Amino acid sequence: MNSSPAQLLSAQNVNQLLDSVQAFLFDCDGVIWKGDKLIDGVPETLHMLRSKGKKLVFVTNNSTKSRSQYANKFLSLGISVTEDEIFSSSFAAAMYLQLINFPQHKKVYVIGEQGILEELQLAGFTALGGPEDGKKTAQLKSNCLFEHDKSVGAVVVGLDQYVNYYKLQYGTLCIRENPGCLFIATNRDAVGHMTDLQEWPGAGCMVAAICGSTQKEPIVVGKPSNFLMEFLLKKFDVSCSKMCMVGDRLDTDILFGQNAGCRTLLVLSGVTTESVLQDPSNKTQPEYYTSKVDR
Amino acid sequence: MNSSPAQLLSAQNVNQLLDSVQAFLFDCDGVIWKGDKLIDGVPETLHMLRSKGKKLVFVTNNSTKSRSQYANKFLSLGISVTEDEIFSSSFAAAMYLQLINFPQHKKVYVIGEQGILEELQLAGFTALGGPEDGKKTAQLKSNCLFEHDKSVGAVVVGLDQYVNYYKLQYGTLCIRENPGCLFIATNRDAVGHMTDLQEWPGAGCMVAAICGSTQKEPIVVGKPSNFLMEFLLKKFDVSCSKMCMVGDRLDTDILFGQNAGCRTLLVLSGVTTESVLQDPSNKTQPEYYTSKVDR
Repeated sequence: MNSSPAQLLSAQNVNQLLDSVQAFLFDCDGVIWKGDKLIDGVPETLHMLRSKGKKLVFVTNNSTKSRSQYANKFLSLGISVTEDEIFSSSFAAAMYLQLINFPQHKKVYVIGEQGILEELQLAGFTALGGPEDGKKTAQLKSNCLFEHDKSVGAVVVGLDQYVNYYKLQYGTLCIRENPGCLFIATNRDAVGHMTDLQEWPGAGCMVAAICGSTQKEPIVVGKPSNFLMEFLLKKFDVSCSKMCMVGDRLDTDILFGQNAGCRTLLVLSGVTTESVLQDPSNKTQPEYYTSKVDR
Repeated sequence: MNSSPAQLLSAQNVNQLLDSVQAFLFDCDGVIWKGDKLIDGVPETLHMLRSKGKKLVFVTNNSTKSRSQYANKFLSLGISVTEDEIFSSSFAAAMYLQLINFPQHKKVYVIGEQGILEELQLAGFTALGGPEDGKKTAQLKSNCLFEHDKSVGAVVVGLDQYVNYYKLQYGTLCIRENPGCLFIATNRDAVGHMTDLQEWPGAGCMVAAICGSTQKEPIVVGKPSNFLMEFLLKKFDVSCSKMCMVGDRLDTDILFGQNAGCRTLLVLSGVTTESVLQDPSNKTQPEYYTSKVDR
């Protein structure tokens, strides 16, 4: 971990950074956009980086969308990004199951949104739950047995704006009663800029709920876990020291970059304020910081 | 904490226990009933204890009902219990706020059910949320600000079968943005016998969700917290050593009794099995154990 204080990005050190880095990994919420609003200066910066031949990768812990849905979101904001450049925690969950050779005859129960379902299906897995179960209700009645699918071998938990007691009971039963059932978290962000005006509870809220009922800890596949970084390093042929993680969160983005030995740049356009960064209690110092992604 | 192994209740030691104890504190779920079904032998045992002049107290972590609703539940099962003999965690939440002189002009947001709302109102507090907010939905849209009441000074979280993203966001905003707002948990039971056939996620699930989004720890007012025991000791004029806690959970009931220096009796009619009790990893040993409450 980097313990020397973060340096403000300046006209001088920005050129040193650009010269020494081959790939930039960008967080999305709070870096590229806030909710549905693009952050000023982003398109020009991405264009400049591409023109210098830099590889761009977009790494988001928000699991509500699939990579294809993210590519559409970028396009709707006037930025052209290919699916191959996008690494969402929804995709990471599917890749994790693929990596461990999760049996195709087993099912995956999802406390989360469409993005997770889509990525699981693209990877060939059978997914249950998701938004549809948001309409279902659990009956706390005498002689009423809550049935669950005994072939569920993994529960994937991500941000879920349709979370309810039905899904919490379903996921809890699978983890507690199906032998060997995995508990996978897309990420554990406490809150996030789900809208441009406000922070809302993140996947960390739903994941904690399942920790609370099962008293188990999840396998985390999104930032800051090593799984996602190892996957990225295999995919791109760039050494860690030539990659720079750009993010707005110390506990996910910057830690994620530092854990892997990447360069790190904190932007103050998201959840982290300068006073939080400079507070003596903060132990995570990025290499650089700047107000926002801008040329 | 008691480290010597639990003794099986026998014809001999049951008389020693009866002679030396003046008040019996009973947990309800898994001890008196399972869901809506009375456990065999309970009415006869309670009758026998009353005939011997023992004080009976019913202490439940289930916050979904008020004391008056619990008295009705006892009656519907053919047992006569007065409201004064009932201590639910819903009541404990209201008593805690009264004890700390929580200002009457401040409001309490409830992630929980009717029991908490009723007890708060009986104690003179203004409660928001509860089952009604289970019908509301949160809109994750651009330019849509989620408004919350700035006069909420406490969020009380208990078991909530109507939990949803709206309530999680409401409670999270109050705790994160209202200065000094308290985070109170009725209890942290992971699961409970909400029905006779199955265990379901308990308040520990909803409480953990709010811990996950706020990254704060709650004040716990139900078992095994000392608050409830101190309240009981003030209310009844019996010394701890002459009280016996009867429960089905090691981590709440037995710990609750032991923390206060009470006698303890574990019944195996609820969540704890004999193999869990006897497992070397189990560090909580009650003084006695028996299959169920029976003469």
